[in-house]
Amino acid sequence: MINLSANAVAAGQAMHALARELWPINRSITGDGLRATLTRLLDVVPSLRISETPSGSRALDWTVPEEWRVQRAQLTGPDGEVIADLAVNNLHLMGYSCAVDRTLSLTELAPHLHSIEDQPDAIPYVTSYYQRQWGFCLPHAKRLTLKEGNYRALIEAQHFPGSLSYADLLLPGDSEQEVFVSSYCCHPSMANNELSGPVLAIYLAKWLSELPARRYSYRFALVPEMIGSLAYLQRHLATLKRNVVAGFNLSCVGDERAYSYLPSRAENTLADRIALHVLHHTDADFKRYRWLDRGSDESNYCAPGVDLPVASVMRSKYGEFPEYHTSLDDLDNVVTPLGLAQSYALMQRIVLGLEHNHTYRVTVLGEPQLGRRGLYPQTSKKGSTASVRTLLDLLSYADGKLDLLTIAQCCEVPIWQLAPLCERLLQEGLFERV
Amino acid sequence: MINLSANAVAAGQAMHALARELWPINRSITGDGLRATLTRLLDVVPSLRISETPSGSRALDWTVPEEWRVQRAQLTGPDGEVIADLAVNNLHLMGYSCAVDRTLSLTELAPHLHSIEDQPDAIPYVTSYYQRQWGFCLPHAKRLTLKEGNYRALIEAQHFPGSLSYADLLLPGDSEQEVFVSSYCCHPSMANNELSGPVLAIYLAKWLSELPARRYSYRFALVPEMIGSLAYLQRHLATLKRNVVAGFNLSCVGDERAYSYLPSRAENTLADRIALHVLHHTDADFKRYRWLDRGSDESNYCAPGVDLPVASVMRSKYGEFPEYHTSLDDLDNVVTPLGLAQSYALMQRIVLGLEHNHTYRVTVLGEPQLGRRGLYPQTSKKGSTASVRTLLDLLSYADGKLDLLTIAQCCEVPIWQLAPLCERLLQEGLFERV
Amino acid sequence: MINLSANAVAAGQAMHALARELWPINRSITGDGLRATLTRLLDVVPSLRISETPSGSRALDWTVPEEWRVQRAQLTGPDGEVIADLAVNNLHLMGYSCAVDRTLSLTELAPHLHSIEDQPDAIPYVTSYYQRQWGFCLPHAKRLTLKEGNYRALIEAQHFPGSLSYADLLLPGDSEQEVFVSSYCCHPSMANNELSGPVLAIYLAKWLSELPARRYSYRFALVPEMIGSLAYLQRHLATLKRNVVAGFNLSCVGDERAYSYLPSRAENTLADRIALHVLHHTDADFKRYRWLDRGSDESNYCAPGVDLPVASVMRSKYGEFPEYHTSLDDLDNVVTPLGLAQSYALMQRIVLGLEHNHTYRVTVLGEPQLGRRGLYPQTSKKGSTASVRTLLDLLSYADGKLDLLTIAQCCEVPIWQLAPLCERLLQEGLFERV
Repeated sequence: MINLSANAVAAGQAMHALARELWPINRSITGDGLRATLTRLLDVVPSLRISETPSGSRALDWTVPEEWRVQRAQLTGPDGEVIADLAVNNLHLMGYSCAVDRTLSLTELAPHLHSIEDQPDAIPYVTSYYQRQWGFCLPHAKRLTLKEGNYRALIEAQHFPGSLSYADLLLPGDSEQEVFVSSYCCHPSMANNELSGPVLAIYLAKWLSELPARRYSYRFALVPEMIGSLAYLQRHLATLKRNVVAGFNLSCVGDERAYSYLPSRAENTLADRIALHVLHHTDADFKRYRWLDRGSDESNYCAPGVDLPVASVMRSKYGEFPEYHTSLDDLDNVVTPLGLAQSYALMQRIVLGLEHNHTYRVTVLGEPQLGRRGLYPQTSKKGSTASVRTLLDLLSYADGKLDLLTIAQCCEVPIWQLAPLCERLLQEGLFERV
Repeated sequence: MINLSANAVAAGQAMHALARELWPINRSITGDGLRATLTRLLDVVPSLRISETPSGSRALDWTVPEEWRVQRAQLTGPDGEVIADLAVNNLHLMGYSCAVDRTLSLTELAPHLHSIEDQPDAIPYVTSYYQRQWGFCLPHAKRLTLKEGNYRALIEAQHFPGSLSYADLLLPGDSEQEVFVSSYCCHPSMANNELSGPVLAIYLAKWLSELPARRYSYRFALVPEMIGSLAYLQRHLATLKRNVVAGFNLSCVGDERAYSYLPSRAENTLADRIALHVLHHTDADFKRYRWLDRGSDESNYCAPGVDLPVASVMRSKYGEFPEYHTSLDDLDNVVTPLGLAQSYALMQRIVLGLEHNHTYRVTVLGEPQLGRRGLYPQTSKKGSTASVRTLLDLLSYADGKLDLLTIAQCCEVPIWQLAPLCERLLQEGLFERV
Repeated sequence: MINLSANAVAAGQAMHALARELWPINRSITGDGLRATLTRLLDVVPSLRISETPSGSRALDWTVPEEWRVQRAQLTGPDGEVIADLAVNNLHLMGYSCAVDRTLSLTELAPHLHSIEDQPDAIPYVTSYYQRQWGFCLPHAKRLTLKEGNYRALIEAQHFPGSLSYADLLLPGDSEQEVFVSSYCCHPSMANNELSGPVLAIYLAKWLSELPARRYSYRFALVPEMIGSLAYLQRHLATLKRNVVAGFNLSCVGDERAYSYLPSRAENTLADRIALHVLHHTDADFKRYRWLDRGSDESNYCAPGVDLPVASVMRSKYGEFPEYHTSLDDLDNVVTPLGLAQSYALMQRIVLGLEHNHTYRVTVLGEPQLGRRGLYPQTSKKGSTASVRTLLDLLSYADGKLDLLTIAQCCEVPIWQLAPLCERLLQEGLFERV
């Protein structure tokens, strides 16, 4: 597993603390919870820009829905007992529920209750964005205790013409070519899916904004999942298609389990290549998914005609870990400072790999004489040359056509071991950049 | 294994009955037995066209041989016992035997006798088309009982300038592009190799002729093996090269054992792709042969300069099943109505797969909103999206470049599951054909 | 393993005898030992041409070093005992040692002594070409017996402006296209690495020079390793780049262990293809190395911008067998007449494979009628066609595009089985060369 720098350890702590702060906010795909979350991220990187897209706006094939606001949601039982209360846990209320104030029998109530038989202590996360419904979610163990009688369902909520919020950030680099990092911000009170994504994204942006130089420009987008990425594409598609050379959807990046990779649709973009390379050299047990396993904004970013080179880097993939989309996905047992720090370090490796991925041409014919440049041991005996093998391998592949990432694959070493050697060879005049 | 429609079950019965009717006819690569067989097939599909190619005609590198006619062939033993008689089984006479009327000792007779030591009860199938010889074939068990004495070999046969018969059929479609189905008609009194091939071919032609519309034109050729396909190519090569997009040699398609596939020489033609796809999704145990294992008319169809996209689809491959080229290859123990019906259904899948193999482009950018089109479940919770995965996968690949067959491979579902979805998406305006 | 012709067996004996004759000569990367060796090889093939490159000349990125001459080298112990003596074994003196005449304590002497703890009876082979040092090499067992006291190190040697010697040879063929064979000549008193290489090279050249006709021209280079190949490229690069279609670095070709193959950098050159093909059909256990495992002149021949198609063919690869670079690498236990003969026969297969690797086009459409050309059995029965399968397979692939080597791979037979069939088909007019 990855070795952590002090910077990464500190970032892990900071990300975890920020996630804990954001935890209680009742996020959804629109509304004040989403806005409050984005505003808090702006404290970390002030150049973050928050945008609003009015309800009814076109978002490619979709339409931005009405905004949702909720003041109160409570389900009480025959004896006045509180069965489910938004004030206790945001997940108790089905997302985007419409207003209701009714008294119902248990039978009438049943279609409005959601629980998971196999996870009796978990409150499930359920939403209904595009059909007006209402519902309460509760642990199955609790549900089993419900007795016959009159239940009161009270939801004070409004759907109204408002707007959808998202945030983005562009860190200019030497080139207009962009590396694009997207994450989503619409899940209430869950940790891996999703607070881990936006907190990692904002801390990566912070680190990148403080670098003395950047080869690439970096674009970050923090959007409500699905509809937010569609709205973002609606406004920025031409720019993204022109500039983005590699992109990553960050999701479920806060636990300590094995890393996961899900390819772009094209499967062989620069984003896929660098992600696979870094994962290969970081986590022998990383799990490789297929495009068929996708389930987040890459569906839009990689759709035909959009065709952005966006791969997904995760720890436990959404849908694959037991706590996914339940109240068990928390900041104590699932997402940890260490898990966040490791993902942060991994993304640094990916970003620096891209920054270092130049194409070099060796300036001399034949194997260069390293000895007179102080790069070769002076006495030749069995085994003594082992230490310069990587340098010679690098030189042997630097034909002005293969990029450093390809050469790293050929040499079977991580690109971060080759990058300083390239610098040295540039200094010696043995390398030139193509 | 494949599920059979009532139509396929009925076709299986009809094919088996037709094969039983054709069984006693003494077919060879020329002659009245071949003509009678083709004429009987014409009853099933009246548009079948029977052609004659005169002896001595050029057939690419070959020459159409003299026609063969036989009235009587009998081998009698020292005591007048009938050892082998054409009237009892066509296989008793070596195919294309010349006339003889001689009395021989057992030693003199030996070079003219053919039997199989390992299959003592089988009459082997032996021919000598291009060198004038005569011979009798008999079970090895019988051969072992022969005692010293005078044997009389009597064959009343003629080789004379006549013609070689074949039949073909063209079912026009919306396009001049053709799907080509070839099978052969020259083996007497054997069931899998070969009656299964022509009876399946003619019933496929019947089914296709009754379809309300055909995207492709369909060409069927029923020829004596080898020399017949050469004669057919001699006359139709330019048309075939211009029009055929996929072709199949049907052989040994009547038993119930695992399916077999033998590639075209190019190995990656449309015929190979659809055959492999359908077999993959129909029979987990299908056997994949190599071009090196070929042994039928594909040698001509795929020869350099001919280069037709012809793959072979079989059940037990010729040469690989124990009854092959013996009297054991019968309509009771080897070829069954069920085996024929399954091959019929498989070929329907192949044909319909080709008919459906359009290239589609999704008309919207990003993932379409299926919900407002009634294509998506309204409530999002764990697992509820499983039912629309295939639809979304299909949409995600429909880039206007990949054909449906490629997309089916990507989605890991059979093309016959995708075809109705494509129709629906066309209706919704989400798909357009390229 | 390969069957040896009488010619190969005799060549094995001759090569081994020659190697024994060359054994005592004190070769290095320059000097009279190298010259004497090349001069002796000239006895075998008189057209060998010996060239001298002055010290200080440019050799691509390198400079030809001063020449080295040594008269005497002796290390004596406190009691006058001779510890190491050049006159006893060339390996006792570190290659390119500078002159010294000093008395030293055992502690002062230690940095100048070389031995191998794991191989206590072996004298290691150590050199220091590009930094002036001196040293003695001795068995570790001997070293452990050294006691405190005064040691005298006496080396009478000179480094002086002289020249570097190499030899080459061009056997013209029908084409200016060349097959290039390189081996190296700079190791004193070791057998597999290296006397096996130059003796095999010169006997291959002898055999080739006596062939009645050659399709390709053949170039042999016998150079001191590394600096010699650089000097050779300095002078001949343009010619080599223009003419060489396949090249082989011969090294460690005299033992009887499994064959080894190390690819060119491009990995798919004609040299790689023929070497892999011949090895595949000769030694089921041959070992396949990667470019990363390289360690000889292929580093220069395949360097970016040089890009020659040079693969390496070996028995035990340098660096991988226990006796490598020690006094144990001898002509008794490691290199044998049989081992040399087998490598000679293997290289003949490679060379003849290249000579035979034409591209053919079949002149008729469809499968040719072999029968009327006497190429087919006259009676068709089960199995009788097995003997003509290879001929039919060859015909089926001869499309005027695939070369014979590719067809041999497709047919899964060695190219030396196809070559005589091609001759026969040319005679029959069924084949034409493209």
